[in-house]
Formats: sequence, C-alpha cells, structure tokens
Amino acid sequence: MPITFTILLDLLGTFAFAISGIRLASGKQIDWFGAYIIGLVTAIGGGTTRDLLLDVTPFWMLDAKYFLTTGVALIAALLFKDKLFKWGNTLFLFDTIGLGLFTIVGITKSIDAGLSIWVCIVMGTITASLGGVVRDVLLNEVPLLFRKDIYALACVAGGGVYFICIYFNLPTGITELLAALTVIALRLIAVKFHIHLPQITLIKND
Amino acid sequence: MPITFTILLDLLGTFAFAISGIRLASGKQIDWFGAYIIGLVTAIGGGTTRDLLLDVTPFWMLDAKYFLTTGVALIAALLFKDKLFKWGNTLFLFDTIGLGLFTIVGITKSIDAGLSIWVCIVMGTITASLGGVVRDVLLNEVPLLFRKDIYALACVAGGGVYFICIYFNLPTGITELLAALTVIALRLIAVKFHIHLPQITLIKND
Amino acid sequence: MPITFTILLDLLGTFAFAISGIRLASGKQIDWFGAYIIGLVTAIGGGTTRDLLLDVTPFWMLDAKYFLTTGVALIAALLFKDKLFKWGNTLFLFDTIGLGLFTIVGITKSIDAGLSIWVCIVMGTITASLGGVVRDVLLNEVPLLFRKDIYALACVAGGGVYFICIYFNLPTGITELLAALTVIALRLIAVKFHIHLPQITLIKND
Repeated sequence: MPITFTILLDLLGTFAFAISGIRLASGKQIDWFGAYIIGLVTAIGGGTTRDLLLDVTPFWMLDAKYFLTTGVALIAALLFKDKLFKWGNTLFLFDTIGLGLFTIVGITKSIDAGLSIWVCIVMGTITASLGGVVRDVLLNEVPLLFRKDIYALACVAGGGVYFICIYFNLPTGITELLAALTVIALRLIAVKFHIHLPQITLIKND
Repeated sequence: MPITFTILLDLLGTFAFAISGIRLASGKQIDWFGAYIIGLVTAIGGGTTRDLLLDVTPFWMLDAKYFLTTGVALIAALLFKDKLFKWGNTLFLFDTIGLGLFTIVGITKSIDAGLSIWVCIVMGTITASLGGVVRDVLLNEVPLLFRKDIYALACVAGGGVYFICIYFNLPTGITELLAALTVIALRLIAVKFHIHLPQITLIKND
Repeated sequence: MPITFTILLDLLGTFAFAISGIRLASGKQIDWFGAYIIGLVTAIGGGTTRDLLLDVTPFWMLDAKYFLTTGVALIAALLFKDKLFKWGNTLFLFDTIGLGLFTIVGITKSIDAGLSIWVCIVMGTITASLGGVVRDVLLNEVPLLFRKDIYALACVAGGGVYFICIYFNLPTGITELLAALTVIALRLIAVKFHIHLPQITLIKND
C-alpha cells in the first residue's frame, strides 16, 4: 500500500476506535476529559500492550498524531452529538477497517522483532482488539469481545491468511491487503448475519 | 526436581489455572473464545506481568505449550461440563500445586535477574496470584484474592521459606520443594479450616 | 528542593495515596491483605506504568520504602479507624501534595529519558493519576478520575508550567516548585469551588 494511504487508514482507524470509546463513555457520568482518555485508551491500548510485550518504545510516544486524532474525535463527538448515532454504519465501517489495519500493523511489527508465526498472529490480534477490552474494563463492563460477535477471531483468521500469503511468496502489498480484507470481510459478514460463537455454560448441578 | 517432573507440574498448574478461569466465565454470557482468553489470562497473566517488570521476553512467547494447554483446558471443560464441578476437589489440588510451583518459578527467575530478596518474594507472589486478579477484573468482580482465603499470603510465606533454606545452604532441589510445599500446605490448611484474615472496616461515623 | 525534603514529600505522598486506597477498600468485604495491595497499587501504580513505558526498572524494586510506607499506612488505618475520616482534610492535603510531587517526578524521569515535551507531560500525568485508576478498577468502580473534579487535568497544567519555566531558563528548583504548586493550587481551587468539566452525553434519539 502506498505510504500516505496507509497513514490515512491508520488515522481513520484511530478516529473510529476513539469514537467507539467516547460513545460508550457517554451517559455514564463521565466528563470530557474522561471521555478523551477512554477514547485514547481504546485507540492506543492494543498497540501499547504489543509494544510493551515486544519491548520497544510505545508507538504513540514517537508521534503525536494519535493523541491529536483522539482530540479531533472528542471535538467531533461533542459537535455532532446525535448525528454520531445516525452515522453508526459509517463509523462501524471505519472501526472494522481499523481492526483489519491494526492487525496487519501488529503482525509486521512482530515479524520485524523476529517472533515465530503464531506469536505474530497473537500480536496482531492484541494490537487490534485489546484497546476495546481496556475500554470496557474502565467502564466497568465485561468486555464485549468476550460476549458477542466475531471480533478477535477475525483478526486471528486474517493473521492466518497473512502467513499463507507469505508461504506462497505473494508480494508484501498483496499479502497485507488480503489479510486486512479477510479481517474486514469476516467481521462484516458475522455482524450482518448475526454469526457468533456459542456461549459457555457449564452445568453446575445435573 | 527432575526437569520432566517440573514441566509436568507446570502444565498441570497451567491447566488448573485455565480451568479456574473458564469455570468462572461460565454462565456469564461469555462465548467460547472469551472463555479461552479468560482461561489464558488466568494461567499466564501473573508470569507475563513478572516478565514485563523484569524486562525479559514474556515466557509464553518462547513456547506454545501454554496456549495449547489452555486450548486443551477449554476442550476438556466443554466435553466434561458438569463433571468439572464434581471434580472440584481434584482441580482445587492442581490449582494449589500450580500456586506453589508458579511461586518458585517467579522467585528463581528473579534471582537470575539479580534482584534483592524481598523483590524476589514479591515477584513469586505476582507470578502465582496476579493471573487470578486479572481474571476477576475482566469478569467485572472485585478480585477474590482481596476478599477471601489465604492465597497470595501463602506465596509470601513460601518465598520466606525459600530464602531461609538458601540461608542454611540447603540444596536447590530441597529448597524449591520445601518452599512449594509451604505454599501448598498453607493454602490447603487455610481452606480446610476456614482460616482467613479479618476484613477491613474503618468506621465512618463514631 | 533539598534532597531530604523531597524524600519526605515523596513518603508523605505515598502515605496519602496508600491511605486513599485503603479507605476506599474499607467496607467492601476486603481483608487486610487486600487493603494493603490496593493501598500499594494506588501509591505505586502510576510510577510503575511510567517506568514500564520508559523501559526502566520500576522504581519500587530499587527501594523498599514504598512497600514499607504502605505497611505503615495500613497499620495507621487499622489503629485510627474512625479518626481517618475526621482527618479527611489533612489527608486530602497530603494527597494533593503527592499529586503535585508525583507529576514532577514523572516529568523529570521522562526528560532524563530524552522524550519530547508533550510525552513528558503525559508521563507526569500518568505517574500522578494512574494509581487511582487502577485502584478504582480493582474495586470494580468506574474510575473517579473520569467522573469528577479536576485531577489529571491539574497535572497536565502543572506540566505546562514546568516547560514554560524551562523555556524562560528558570532554575530547576524554582521550576519544580512552581509546577508542583500549580498542580496543588488547581486541585485545591477546583475542589473548594466545585469546579469540574461538563459530562459527556451524546443524544441517542433526537
């Protein structure tokens, strides 16, 4: 992917993740600053955890654009209040694109760190989905990720596709595109057709 | 301890910790994937925190067996549903053995990192008990560790015994065995005789 | 600031932060050990997160005084039970002094690590305020920080003042004092006059 296009997608993903945090914070007696922090943590929580595990400098320390994008997301949320919910589908699309892109970012960073394939896939999944977990924990809810939809599992599948492409020596651009599209397509299909995993219920008394 | 025996105990401990996470996830509208993640975090959360604090590569990145063992635990939980509760005592024993073993693993890793005695004991305690704290936070409960039973305190005591043995120049094998047995015995005794610390209640109005 | 005075303030801040954790744990069926851990996490959680992000050894591993001070705080809380609430104002003052001091500690450590100005301010804010967030998450509450008062924002402002002083080449001692006083004054004023940010409420249906 051309570099500017990747940056644009990165910012769109960050924006969508931040908005998802701010929306969930709304109506829970949380102030503007709190909403900013929850948006921020949703957007950068996954990548920060990945970087701590990889023992590299957290990515947001090197570039202010993630903090700024979150600020823009907060201002947009405050300005367009009710419209945010009308635009739900568009934001959901951004969010899903972010999911795909962040998975790829996590995988490529882990390959650079020389990790084995399955760890790279785990890192891609962490990058894309852990921010939402931290968001839910801060808002005092059982993470959505554990309860509904195909979300992290789409990242795992995308990671699988990534390394299948690598195995067949596909060019990097194609590999990244196919992997990201896998994540995006799986998530869209799962939500559209209400596909989800069964819930776990161990019977306590026979 | 012979190396294969230690590995067996490590896997048993991981399995028991994972099962404890999966059991707690049951009945909370959590899907199979969520149950897997909660089992995983229970099993590796403590050691991962320790490795981040020690600034070494998280142990599970170097060996897939922890992720695999958690997968086996999930399958076992799904297959044996109700029996899991009948086998409660056996699983409790595994869990307690895991507690003892993980404490020792944390201490020895910290000694290798050249830390002072009290930090090693803290690290042993973190290794053995923090996974359960993360599990409870993810499930939106006040950590059990803070509320009931002698759990982390047994790890602290085991750590104390470890360094008393070192002080008296006991061989490594004996030292590790005595320390682990201390953790296990204290936990078993505390649960059997309902021994626990008093709760904290500061009076607001006299 | 003379070194011994800084150490005294550091211990006072640690003590006040630990007490704030222990007080919030009270009456929630948490035992003494749990109260100690929650006090500890309140006191050292922010600095530990900062050190993990900066990739340096967590400060408390190098000096037992933070664990000891938290122990003293627990004993004091158990001994003076009801008086703790009578002394609320004094403890609030300590807590606010701790906030100011921890902000400065976070900033200076980050400057030493060669980070850019805005990252230093973020680190100062994390150092001073993240312990309280972890405390609230462990106690299963939506962090107070997100809901009420000017708290983290006072740290951000103090960080701004810090770098304005640096810009004007003020001596280090004066710079640190003015920045800390800014944090303290803003917090005191905000609480006294009930100044807080508006809450976020996005309208779901027009």
